[in-house]
Amino acid sequence: MGIESYVVVHNIAKRHNVGTMARSATAFGVSELILVGRRDFNAFGSHGSTSHLRFRHFHSLLDAQTFLKEKDCDICGVEITDNAVAVNQHPFKRSTAFLLGNEGTGLSAKECAICDFFIYIPQYGVGTASLNVTVAASIVLHHFGVWAGFPERCRDGNKFIVAERPVRQVKRNYCAETEESIIEERKSRRENASKGFFDEGMIDDSTSNLLDTLFIDQ
Amino acid sequence: MGIESYVVVHNIAKRHNVGTMARSATAFGVSELILVGRRDFNAFGSHGSTSHLRFRHFHSLLDAQTFLKEKDCDICGVEITDNAVAVNQHPFKRSTAFLLGNEGTGLSAKECAICDFFIYIPQYGVGTASLNVTVAASIVLHHFGVWAGFPERCRDGNKFIVAERPVRQVKRNYCAETEESIIEERKSRRENASKGFFDEGMIDDSTSNLLDTLFIDQ
Repeated sequence: MGIESYVVVHNIAKRHNVGTMARSATAFGVSELILVGRRDFNAFGSHGSTSHLRFRHFHSLLDAQTFLKEKDCDICGVEITDNAVAVNQHPFKRSTAFLLGNEGTGLSAKECAICDFFIYIPQYGVGTASLNVTVAASIVLHHFGVWAGFPERCRDGNKFIVAERPVRQVKRNYCAETEESIIEERKSRRENASKGFFDEGMIDDSTSNLLDTLFIDQ
Repeated sequence: MGIESYVVVHNIAKRHNVGTMARSATAFGVSELILVGRRDFNAFGSHGSTSHLRFRHFHSLLDAQTFLKEKDCDICGVEITDNAVAVNQHPFKRSTAFLLGNEGTGLSAKECAICDFFIYIPQYGVGTASLNVTVAASIVLHHFGVWAGFPERCRDGNKFIVAERPVRQVKRNYCAETEESIIEERKSRRENASKGFFDEGMIDDSTSNLLDTLFIDQ
């Protein structure tokens, strides 16, 4: 199987950032955008590209990590840590998931704990402590595409050609899941409940809403 | 004199894009953000970085070109033209001004006419015809900084250190000019008028408003 890239977004505060991020993700050949924690997002800025991108949701970072490790994927934190490598040095080895933290605080200790390595984007000016999260994600995904040698999309004049939209799409800006994953999630919740602990945010009955989303003809 | 970079923005339709662009511009060591045509912008998304960035305004593309050529600056159009080079190939030679077009239509023929060469950002996915204009600008400015070898900004923990804000700043989101440039502009307008032509948008009396901006203590 070829090289793939993923974007993992954990508790992004400004939901409209996810829309523009989806646009960049599909431009740079990202396989899936994985939302951890908050499941809803705002498609503003996506220019319709959310319908071309696979979304996946996990309640916890550990679940996301398990999923990615099964795919033999490195998890790369985008953060200015002491041991972070400049993104333009392309320190990539295989399929990679890029973890982006909250806009204000960057990656938390819990988020850093699931990362295999870190990259950062060098800055040269005096005027800002960090980049917009979508801008940072886009620069990283661009570099990964160059490193991986993804084939370039065909063009028509001065635009890249957009595929026809998939006929079936979820209209609400909500990360729906497959029926199987919902059943799995319910099972896992029951198991966790029997172990006496809950993941944060798992108390609400959002899975039944997800089933509604899947089976109601919108 | 060392290598410098400039961003030239011509008639950007969504003014909030200029705010985030200013944040990226200051992160990547841009010397000036040059607005051509529309003079007002929205600092939303700039995170205060607009106060660290020099802004300059020209009524016409030709005026901007004259200014940049006096600085021995190449003008590089960011557009997917047939002869555009991929940005990651770093086709730079000297100080460079990057011209970004309107979000919807890209660079016009008139805009392309002042460019010395073109770069584009390769895309790999099927879901979008182009990138958000601020994302595109940021990727380009990042690469130029890497090519130019700009010295990296010092960090404090996981943030780059932001300089103290200049004490004197124009509070309104309006590209003010120096007194000299306003006098020059008036002279040029008189000359153009005597030649019997006007640049588009030069009819309004915006220069006197600029003088107000300069001399009223806001």
